[in-house]
Amino acid sequence: MRSKLLKQPTIPPKVEASKDVSGLMESMRYIGFQGRMLAGVVDVWSKMLKKENNVIWLGLAGAMVPAGMRRIISHLIRRRMIDVLVSTGANLYHDCFEALGGHHYLGSAHTNDVQLRKNRIDRIYDIFADENKFYRLDVWIQKKFTSMLVDNYPYSSREILFQLGKMLQEKAREKDSIILSAYNARVPIFCPALGDSSLGFSIMFANRAGRSIRVDSLKDVHESSKITEKAPKTSVIYLGGGVPKNFIQQTAVIASYQTRHDRSHDSAIQITTDMPIWGGLSGCTFEEAQSWGKIGPRAKMAVCYCDLTIALPIVVSALNQRFPKLRRTVPEFTWKDNGLELGFGVERV
Amino acid sequence: MRSKLLKQPTIPPKVEASKDVSGLMESMRYIGFQGRMLAGVVDVWSKMLKKENNVIWLGLAGAMVPAGMRRIISHLIRRRMIDVLVSTGANLYHDCFEALGGHHYLGSAHTNDVQLRKNRIDRIYDIFADENKFYRLDVWIQKKFTSMLVDNYPYSSREILFQLGKMLQEKAREKDSIILSAYNARVPIFCPALGDSSLGFSIMFANRAGRSIRVDSLKDVHESSKITEKAPKTSVIYLGGGVPKNFIQQTAVIASYQTRHDRSHDSAIQITTDMPIWGGLSGCTFEEAQSWGKIGPRAKMAVCYCDLTIALPIVVSALNQRFPKLRRTVPEFTWKDNGLELGFGVERV
Amino acid sequence: MRSKLLKQPTIPPKVEASKDVSGLMESMRYIGFQGRMLAGVVDVWSKMLKKENNVIWLGLAGAMVPAGMRRIISHLIRRRMIDVLVSTGANLYHDCFEALGGHHYLGSAHTNDVQLRKNRIDRIYDIFADENKFYRLDVWIQKKFTSMLVDNYPYSSREILFQLGKMLQEKAREKDSIILSAYNARVPIFCPALGDSSLGFSIMFANRAGRSIRVDSLKDVHESSKITEKAPKTSVIYLGGGVPKNFIQQTAVIASYQTRHDRSHDSAIQITTDMPIWGGLSGCTFEEAQSWGKIGPRAKMAVCYCDLTIALPIVVSALNQRFPKLRRTVPEFTWKDNGLELGFGVERV
Amino acid sequence: MRSKLLKQPTIPPKVEASKDVSGLMESMRYIGFQGRMLAGVVDVWSKMLKKENNVIWLGLAGAMVPAGMRRIISHLIRRRMIDVLVSTGANLYHDCFEALGGHHYLGSAHTNDVQLRKNRIDRIYDIFADENKFYRLDVWIQKKFTSMLVDNYPYSSREILFQLGKMLQEKAREKDSIILSAYNARVPIFCPALGDSSLGFSIMFANRAGRSIRVDSLKDVHESSKITEKAPKTSVIYLGGGVPKNFIQQTAVIASYQTRHDRSHDSAIQITTDMPIWGGLSGCTFEEAQSWGKIGPRAKMAVCYCDLTIALPIVVSALNQRFPKLRRTVPEFTWKDNGLELGFGVERV
Repeated sequence: MRSKLLKQPTIPPKVEASKDVSGLMESMRYIGFQGRMLAGVVDVWSKMLKKENNVIWLGLAGAMVPAGMRRIISHLIRRRMIDVLVSTGANLYHDCFEALGGHHYLGSAHTNDVQLRKNRIDRIYDIFADENKFYRLDVWIQKKFTSMLVDNYPYSSREILFQLGKMLQEKAREKDSIILSAYNARVPIFCPALGDSSLGFSIMFANRAGRSIRVDSLKDVHESSKITEKAPKTSVIYLGGGVPKNFIQQTAVIASYQTRHDRSHDSAIQITTDMPIWGGLSGCTFEEAQSWGKIGPRAKMAVCYCDLTIALPIVVSALNQRFPKLRRTVPEFTWKDNGLELGFGVERV
Repeated sequence: MRSKLLKQPTIPPKVEASKDVSGLMESMRYIGFQGRMLAGVVDVWSKMLKKENNVIWLGLAGAMVPAGMRRIISHLIRRRMIDVLVSTGANLYHDCFEALGGHHYLGSAHTNDVQLRKNRIDRIYDIFADENKFYRLDVWIQKKFTSMLVDNYPYSSREILFQLGKMLQEKAREKDSIILSAYNARVPIFCPALGDSSLGFSIMFANRAGRSIRVDSLKDVHESSKITEKAPKTSVIYLGGGVPKNFIQQTAVIASYQTRHDRSHDSAIQITTDMPIWGGLSGCTFEEAQSWGKIGPRAKMAVCYCDLTIALPIVVSALNQRFPKLRRTVPEFTWKDNGLELGFGVERV
Repeated sequence: MRSKLLKQPTIPPKVEASKDVSGLMESMRYIGFQGRMLAGVVDVWSKMLKKENNVIWLGLAGAMVPAGMRRIISHLIRRRMIDVLVSTGANLYHDCFEALGGHHYLGSAHTNDVQLRKNRIDRIYDIFADENKFYRLDVWIQKKFTSMLVDNYPYSSREILFQLGKMLQEKAREKDSIILSAYNARVPIFCPALGDSSLGFSIMFANRAGRSIRVDSLKDVHESSKITEKAPKTSVIYLGGGVPKNFIQQTAVIASYQTRHDRSHDSAIQITTDMPIWGGLSGCTFEEAQSWGKIGPRAKMAVCYCDLTIALPIVVSALNQRFPKLRRTVPEFTWKDNGLELGFGVERV
Repeated sequence: MRSKLLKQPTIPPKVEASKDVSGLMESMRYIGFQGRMLAGVVDVWSKMLKKENNVIWLGLAGAMVPAGMRRIISHLIRRRMIDVLVSTGANLYHDCFEALGGHHYLGSAHTNDVQLRKNRIDRIYDIFADENKFYRLDVWIQKKFTSMLVDNYPYSSREILFQLGKMLQEKAREKDSIILSAYNARVPIFCPALGDSSLGFSIMFANRAGRSIRVDSLKDVHESSKITEKAPKTSVIYLGGGVPKNFIQQTAVIASYQTRHDRSHDSAIQITTDMPIWGGLSGCTFEEAQSWGKIGPRAKMAVCYCDLTIALPIVVSALNQRFPKLRRTVPEFTWKDNGLELGFGVERV
């Protein structure tokens, strides 16, 4: 028993000039604490990429775009290291803002916010932005973007964001955008709380000005669960918690109800700063999710407690170095008549 | 300068048998760290209650009902210590579950979740529940509750939850329910990410079975921002972060756009376990919110970092003891033709 | 199996005017998350008080005295709800400061610290203090207090603090002091990192001025482990982590080595804001401690994640209300010739 | 004003195969949140290395050696990227253990600890170790190591650890040890709470067996503050908080008292998972430290909230790549007659 428990000694990493990020991550497999967990995230993600007929969900919480994560996320989309994105409205709004040429600025968390208000500067922790520029985007969404949309049609957020991608195809000054990359790579984006963002409320203003645009929450639930229902296998990656995490988790519950088979997710990654002890869904362990049948009983799992702006650049750099040329079976989604056809094609990504 | 900064010495509280919860909170006004902040929450909330023509928003994140907070929240509603509720779907689903006679159980966070799965027991940190009972509720929502709803009407979540309150009026076995109390007290409830919950997906299943029920996200945005627009003053209380916090925050931004006047919230409370340093909206300070014009530059503010299941019973007990008989000007909401009439009446609550 | 796991339903507490703090805690036994844990702390502490021939260790980290916790800690000592104190130097230094008439002041965490420096105001989160007054205490320790001490004697920190208690017996203007209460109640205080505090460095200055005072770390280890060795039973309460927690934990390891029997602690409480996931001793679970034999395999345990300035006033108020008249078998320590005699007497405390 | 505040736009990093760790860190200078802070740690540390006549303190809390950080710390010592180490006893004990051929093992945090106890396996979060092997080290310290020490001499922890380094020079099977590297590089190590560790208590057992070894806390305070007093400039790096952080902070206070000049530290780095809001010294900001005169009013500062086992391998790899050949003015410490001579020499490190 004891010898079984004491099998693999830790291997304290050496500091070596030659190590690239992927090499560093490999050397962290044999240490303890969250460092090992971060190495585990890279390893589990690698396995997800090699699995055939596997749909990889990415849940993206918070406001990661103002913090500079836009190109890293769009790299994941372009290279099809993920297949479906579920995001907060904030990430998509700020992505759209940068795509159209807007900027966020290095600021400070120790500042006088009442003074910032007087200068119409909005603060996101240590990032500043010009509120007037945000206002122009809001007007653009309300006036220009909504011209793409029809009245009285129950849109899913996926459909709205597809239209936005199409518009950015034409208008974007900065091509390395999440929404645009997803449009081009045919990666669906869901934003289940679209109303809870500047993107949502700017569309709402069009309604106050006479339009009748409808964003139907229930359609999001329908469409998203169809993906998990039809996919032979699903993997999930949660960057932060919040609605994106729960929304992806529940597709497993719905698909299991619908098919009367266990459709729990097959492998799972989470990078978060929330903690299990507060009892919330955002911080809960994958073990807890197993009790609900959201994550499979034999799933490969990796959870790392770390700020995303540290973990994500490292993990994605390491993956990129590990797979310079990746052949993957990539899912293709065809949405029609309120239904989904799901195919797979082998691609060099 | 120095004498100005060193004015009020700390007063270390004595341990006294006679102290009730309210007295304990008062004695914590003169200490340091989060204890003082908790006393500050009680004091700012007291001021909110005394302000005339003030609409008090409550944002409720997480899954507080499984953790036993149902009666405390419904007490706040019944005694009109709050006026509008914005909640996650989870809280409302579990409230409905308990209202209809369901139970959550004391469990343990150190357990074998794969074993729980085999027994169809769902775990929420240290709380257990019977999945089969949840399933019955899901079917009830899909089959019974949706019979209250009409097809092809763009519902706001508020309208859905009003209908649910009406149904619970008749069916509830346990009257001390959040949804039912809100229905009776005419307190509107918004659930901006309704789809992201068992409540939402059970309604969606009715659609798969032939119905065409629509939950329109944008209508939530419209209705909620009307409240802040029409209210002479607004106060906000955030129990946790997530969508409820951001959703209430943004009503100030929308109302300011709409009226071209500053409609920032007038006083603000937050109890959370999230931290500013991760850069997210859930953990951000009210100072950050001031830079956006969401919270007013001279707002009374109290932020306390504490698990809600500790802080909430204490704060509400203290408020209850402090105001055995409260006369308050209470807002009355009349929704018609996509618009809102807002009146106030003095009530003994 | 399932029925065994689903036995005790949660009982959502009602808000009632009549509840005192003890009653509130009792109503929180049947909820979830950290609220239940806090109720558990009160319950496990109650059991510790009722056990016969039980020595209760208290580990006190941080700087709780500036935050206003002095009288609550000295209440615990005076009423013998604890029997031995292990503390950081900070708590003892600031206790001595307040005992001699000094004050800490309500300040703010959002301030200009460079400006404070110019005014010689020292900040501890949201507490301010007058550095000149601290300086006077430092001189008092260096010049007056050290006159009680002899040269070239290897003092344990316990002996130093006993002498300080004796001096405060005479000099204290505020009697409700931790050090003085411990002196009067014959409760030993250990400060294993005495050098790491203003108390320690002020004594060191006496040495630079010609004295040869010795504080022997190893003697602390010897004396403290003798307590656990000789006690029929030991209980531990950790308020925060740090050196006090580890120091008390290791007395079990040493006593087990010495006696060649399992001397693990018999019941255990921890209130902390540190987290297990970072891998440190401060945040680690009692389960981890069981693997080391520091906590017994069948120990009653309660861990609550909460700021002490919230949890401690509540827990001690509840205990005080629950035990207005407590008869307890109280340990009596007699130190002689580098050894310890440990007796017990029944006292009404 | 506004244009001054909105000067440097964020630059979202691209994912590039060619990036080494140093390049990745450089690309993170222009993002937000903790990622930028981590890049800032590398930049401030780089500046520390380039400053002339600068003594760099490293405070090392926790149990980082079991988590695999031994070689990284000893690399810092060998290449003189730090000049003085202040550590918990745990790090030094486990370093000694690995130096003498012992191993820690990859384990799991989700385990049955009572079962581990039966197998005499000690757990440190997700690391396991063989308690019997620890016991052998304890006996070795008690019986062999103490033969290097004389009775009735007031040792500082630095002197004890120097002797241990000397012994490891001869006995170590693994040369890449912190204590041994420090001995060879003439880097002093302080362990202000030496008694609070297996290292300390094993020496204490020698006393119980007849020896009279003395470890004098006050001598540590004296010696350590002499370093800050005599150094033209001091920089501080805190890996975690606890006693090591406070102990290094207080050398500035003592040195300022002694010299009647401001001897605050000149630049400062902290990597921690503790939070300012709990009011403790471990998590407090450097701004708070400025109010005390521990950190200078114009100090370069970088604070990053991250698990050390993630941050440290990255930061040290980046530094190593940035400075393949570093010429530094390196301090040399000569201890004699209870005093210190401090010189500097230019070295290629």
